[in-house]
Amino acid sequence: MFQEKKNLFIPGPTPVAPGLLRTTSRPVINHRGPEFHELFGRVRSSLGRLFQTEGKVFILTGSGTSAMEAAVANTVSPGDKVLVLVGGAFGERWAKLAETFGAQVERLTYPWGTAADPERVREALAKDEGIKAVFATQNESSTGVANDIKAIAAARGDHPALLVVDAVSSFGAMELDMDGWGVDVVATASQKCLMMPPGLAFVAFGQRAWEAVAEAKAPRFYLDLRQYETFAAIGETPFTPNVHLCFALEEAIGMLEREGVQAARERHLLMRDMVRVGLSALGLEPLVKDERAASPTVTAVLGGDLDIPRFRRIAEEEFGFVLAGGQGELKATTFRIGHMGYMLPVDMVGLLAVVELALARAGKKIELGQGVKAAQELLLERT
Amino acid sequence: MFQEKKNLFIPGPTPVAPGLLRTTSRPVINHRGPEFHELFGRVRSSLGRLFQTEGKVFILTGSGTSAMEAAVANTVSPGDKVLVLVGGAFGERWAKLAETFGAQVERLTYPWGTAADPERVREALAKDEGIKAVFATQNESSTGVANDIKAIAAARGDHPALLVVDAVSSFGAMELDMDGWGVDVVATASQKCLMMPPGLAFVAFGQRAWEAVAEAKAPRFYLDLRQYETFAAIGETPFTPNVHLCFALEEAIGMLEREGVQAARERHLLMRDMVRVGLSALGLEPLVKDERAASPTVTAVLGGDLDIPRFRRIAEEEFGFVLAGGQGELKATTFRIGHMGYMLPVDMVGLLAVVELALARAGKKIELGQGVKAAQELLLERT
Repeated sequence: MFQEKKNLFIPGPTPVAPGLLRTTSRPVINHRGPEFHELFGRVRSSLGRLFQTEGKVFILTGSGTSAMEAAVANTVSPGDKVLVLVGGAFGERWAKLAETFGAQVERLTYPWGTAADPERVREALAKDEGIKAVFATQNESSTGVANDIKAIAAARGDHPALLVVDAVSSFGAMELDMDGWGVDVVATASQKCLMMPPGLAFVAFGQRAWEAVAEAKAPRFYLDLRQYETFAAIGETPFTPNVHLCFALEEAIGMLEREGVQAARERHLLMRDMVRVGLSALGLEPLVKDERAASPTVTAVLGGDLDIPRFRRIAEEEFGFVLAGGQGELKATTFRIGHMGYMLPVDMVGLLAVVELALARAGKKIELGQGVKAAQELLLERT
Repeated sequence: MFQEKKNLFIPGPTPVAPGLLRTTSRPVINHRGPEFHELFGRVRSSLGRLFQTEGKVFILTGSGTSAMEAAVANTVSPGDKVLVLVGGAFGERWAKLAETFGAQVERLTYPWGTAADPERVREALAKDEGIKAVFATQNESSTGVANDIKAIAAARGDHPALLVVDAVSSFGAMELDMDGWGVDVVATASQKCLMMPPGLAFVAFGQRAWEAVAEAKAPRFYLDLRQYETFAAIGETPFTPNVHLCFALEEAIGMLEREGVQAARERHLLMRDMVRVGLSALGLEPLVKDERAASPTVTAVLGGDLDIPRFRRIAEEEFGFVLAGGQGELKATTFRIGHMGYMLPVDMVGLLAVVELALARAGKKIELGQGVKAAQELLLERT
């Protein structure tokens, strides 16, 4: 059989839309020439719409973490007090980044698998007027928790702290009304809900955050957004960008806008619900009990007595479906299903069929077809 | 006519080999799965051969400057004294990077268009045992100067300073025997002589340099090579890499090794010589007079009374050949021709024909065919 036919259901990279893959085989163009200038102007302006901001949007050649580092290094100075919401591996990444650049980090921790409580943010900020920034994660893909950024922004309220949000695995799948909610910085990347290959990262700075950039004293060069701003004025980046992924970006934004950003969000919610109801019918429990906190893009599943490595190996080697392992403190006890990007609700039916097959082969007692059926019923009901 | 048919003769991005472009339209794979682990192991080990080092080679998702920053941030601590050889924009980039990360920078400057004098390196080091690192540029693409890294390494001699080399626009076209010459760190990128699209960068650390990494106190996270080393042990990168460009990298290395690394270097020398002899026949003068210092990959040309912007515009808009402008202090007085990567000596004939056409259209008195002829003669003589 076609051993190389693989279906990725991991939290990124996600399957790349074939139309985007075609753009990455075009001949390269001069990144300092008129064709690039026009492309760059168009994609920056379209990204502004997706970020829902009148602020500045920067395109970085790098992984999602490069956008997170740009968010930290351009807002923080050594000694600054910052508050970091940590309920998983990516919240912890904010904390490590801020510590690396010399910030005094106060971690507001909450159990992995639960959402951040905006009230605790309000309390922590009320105690200290000097906190410079709050770092939050919209979608914690290590646990499958979606945090309520609107409520966190409201809890920040008039406190002068900047609100900096990691939207790497939610951008395009969850609402994030940057200017409307008062979010100051948002970081994301190409290889998640934008359906693109990995290799580009994006970071948006609102006006208040941009004013902070001039004050920030953390050392930065490759990710110094002041250089990007200077070059953006002539339609360029300071360093040679991945021009192919700029082609792909234009296609990706076009696909999302033709679908409709609201429709894309609803598609992800339906995929999430189909996965949850299907797993439940098979006796598998999602880590996140509270549906309001359940991520639209990734579901972490408790393995119970299942031999998770063996189950994942069977799914991949026998059936070509790639599921992710657990992360951090959940490494041994969970596996994760990514349901984001270039996927349709009907793909969840096939996914659940393979989950069933691999569970059966791994020796778990289930009734074949029950997960599929539950997902099918939900699909018919909701569409 | 086909307005989109463009021939890039700029110092990167260079034309991408079509076989490599095909790899970038493959379906994406899991960067934490077995297929990637194997690919990553193969390309790292092949890169080690190209770098001519037994040291550690790191693959970064970023522009060439990200590899330069990794070289600085992982070797330098605030307050360290470093010596930077500056004879163009990229030497100056080393200096700015080192300053950004808190080093005390001593610039050893030499006129743009001339090579660094190894004797001055020896003298500067002899005066100060405390210099921690010497930063050099193998190929200064702002001026078209090739520096003699072997001689600079010999001039460094037993001085404890690390020798850190920017080989972004020379890697694959010029010899750089990293371990043999005693070069400690080499940085390069995908979009030059490797014939790949932009988006990956590479940095190699020899043993002495790797020992310095543990001591370096500059803040770094996205480019913290200690994290890359930890993940390399399991065949991965710490952050989602550009997996498509890892496919392309394997093809690129295969192409270079099938051609033969020595043959590739000679190809670049012949292309350089054809361009120089052709320009000379047309009465155009290269910036770099001393042929031993003339870059095999990029030639900066003095415009004289030529209206350079108009000449370049004609070459691009009428004939589809993209030449680069001058850079830095040479912006107004030179243009640059990139002759590197996926190019053959015979392509220089076509290039010179277009240079002639555009010169004629721009009103310069030349005899058509004279540049072409000189290059043809050299080609026949040397092959």
